[in-house]
Amino acid sequence: MSERFHFTLHATDGRARTGTIHTPRGDIRTPAFMPVGTAATVKAMLPESVRTTGADILLGNTYHLMLRPGAERIARLGGLHRFMNWDRPILTDSGGFQVMSLAALRKLTEDGVTFSSHIDGSRHLLSPETSMEIQRLLGSDIVMCFDECPALPATEEAVAQSMRLSMRWAQRSRDAFGDRPGHALFGIMQGGVTPELREESAEALKAIGFDGYAIGGLAVGEGQAAMFGVLDYAPGFLPVDKPRYLMGVGKPDDIVGAVQRGVDMMDCVLPSRSGRTGQAWTRRGPVAIKNARHADDPRPLDADCTCPACTGYSRAYLHHVFRAGEMISGMLLTWHNLHYFQELMAGLRAAIAQGRLDDFVADFHALRAQGDIEPL
Amino acid sequence: MSERFHFTLHATDGRARTGTIHTPRGDIRTPAFMPVGTAATVKAMLPESVRTTGADILLGNTYHLMLRPGAERIARLGGLHRFMNWDRPILTDSGGFQVMSLAALRKLTEDGVTFSSHIDGSRHLLSPETSMEIQRLLGSDIVMCFDECPALPATEEAVAQSMRLSMRWAQRSRDAFGDRPGHALFGIMQGGVTPELREESAEALKAIGFDGYAIGGLAVGEGQAAMFGVLDYAPGFLPVDKPRYLMGVGKPDDIVGAVQRGVDMMDCVLPSRSGRTGQAWTRRGPVAIKNARHADDPRPLDADCTCPACTGYSRAYLHHVFRAGEMISGMLLTWHNLHYFQELMAGLRAAIAQGRLDDFVADFHALRAQGDIEPL
Repeated sequence: MSERFHFTLHATDGRARTGTIHTPRGDIRTPAFMPVGTAATVKAMLPESVRTTGADILLGNTYHLMLRPGAERIARLGGLHRFMNWDRPILTDSGGFQVMSLAALRKLTEDGVTFSSHIDGSRHLLSPETSMEIQRLLGSDIVMCFDECPALPATEEAVAQSMRLSMRWAQRSRDAFGDRPGHALFGIMQGGVTPELREESAEALKAIGFDGYAIGGLAVGEGQAAMFGVLDYAPGFLPVDKPRYLMGVGKPDDIVGAVQRGVDMMDCVLPSRSGRTGQAWTRRGPVAIKNARHADDPRPLDADCTCPACTGYSRAYLHHVFRAGEMISGMLLTWHNLHYFQELMAGLRAAIAQGRLDDFVADFHALRAQGDIEPL
Repeated sequence: MSERFHFTLHATDGRARTGTIHTPRGDIRTPAFMPVGTAATVKAMLPESVRTTGADILLGNTYHLMLRPGAERIARLGGLHRFMNWDRPILTDSGGFQVMSLAALRKLTEDGVTFSSHIDGSRHLLSPETSMEIQRLLGSDIVMCFDECPALPATEEAVAQSMRLSMRWAQRSRDAFGDRPGHALFGIMQGGVTPELREESAEALKAIGFDGYAIGGLAVGEGQAAMFGVLDYAPGFLPVDKPRYLMGVGKPDDIVGAVQRGVDMMDCVLPSRSGRTGQAWTRRGPVAIKNARHADDPRPLDADCTCPACTGYSRAYLHHVFRAGEMISGMLLTWHNLHYFQELMAGLRAAIAQGRLDDFVADFHALRAQGDIEPL
């Protein structure tokens, strides 16, 4: 575990980049999509199946894991990798976002956030120091600074105050993280949709110094146009030689647009959550498998897809097991969705490396515009 | 599909037998345990995973499949094997048992059973002729006669009348099945716990002539002692050169006792249903994974088990994901349980072949008597 965490940039195409994040637990090809394993499992998947889709790294949620089964318990059991049977890199969030969206009776102070567990009501404190300690106990490879993500809509003044609190917390996170060879600490840029605040935040983070930089406060309901608006300039405030991580994104077209704007890493529950609710993502856009038009359709979701759902089963079968409430429905659709998302990332990486990203993106949108295959 | 269905007996040990059922879709090693794929899926498993546990054959439920997605639809889609992505043998029950336990507004006549679907209330008829047609549409390799299984407790007179109705239905099933090379039709012995009725039923079935014979009307709440009491004599009424199938059995000790008494095939939802409700079956007996004593236990369910749940995960992890309601809990425990059941069958087959079944059974009971491993 003594190898240094570092990022190698291989090629650029416009603002888009492709590279490799090197970690002691394995390389991460960028642009990378990170499936979310909230409670130490990517829902409906075995970790070896997640790996076969092409995922190099998973995301774990500090908030969920600290409450159940508990970070100390996971540490005693050998860390999160061993606990969940995934030996490749894991990024953990700081808990800052979820404590504000899920916890009850939360109280925000300069020190941090006290809150009640949504599971059993027990009281907890999340602060820069406790978040760093929990992420250390989990054994996370990429640790996120503890930050505050203000609820939208908010005034520019509120966004500014929140951002400056997050920057003070970033310094405290850096101090508490210390020197941990082989492990990385990422700062999180805030500042809403105001370029001056985004730049102020980036300068503050760069002055502290991090192994990577996240773009926070997006994908929280502001819409794609507003998000792309920020991504048109915000990545430019960040160091070229460090990975840039857009948190909580997103739909396939969000991902494509973010990569075009210089993002290197993303995560989202969408492919797994959609899989459990009967929505498949394909090159032709989303498919609602519960729709009656699939009931007699012998064709796969996507004839060109090599995932187990597409090579082994008809739309009629997927429709049937979804309607019957069978677990295999969530298992197969999640597998398909994760496979599709990773295939999309591989396509983006190859296109950037070959300098043909514009063509790739044009084809991406053209196929989606055609929509799903015609009913039988 | 023109190869004949036939049974080869390899060895006996006491009343126990080991052999091979040959079918055009592959061999079935006996004694065989058949996982249940009620609605065209063994719940929480992919079919290729079921196969790796050692299963040679699955069971499908006529009642469920005729109602959803419908037998005609499955036939249009190429049959049940293709529909559910399982190319090895499938046995389908006749619907007779489930129509009496699940359907509403059922009416039993000499012709058959009319009933309302438990899903949408639609009216249906199951009779020897419709059951044979539905099982043909599904493409079942081993078709079961349509029979009536009387609710217990019942008077001997009621059991006798029901058995004689089932024997008339057995003749109608035989007539309706016709000649289908490569496909087998099994008769079902009834007669409750009365030896004379069991013998009368067996004689009636043998006079008609079937490719195999099931022992019906057991595992319906009569208890293990009463079941073994029937199994002490009933298999002896059946032809030596045809497979004997005990329907709906059972727990591991039920299986062992049935095999000792000359049973060749069994099926039960127990390993998959238990897996979804947090109960693991091991060589040391059942383990309730939700029990708090597992919360910090780094050991696998069974250190000697080679299934994915035991080689990749601690009891602490299995406890956590069960408590958190994660799908991987049902996926891993079902896999473990099916693996254990198939391992038990492989052990029984080897012991019979080597003439050491008594020692095997003694070891089986001795290890269970020790109980689960000590808490940490």
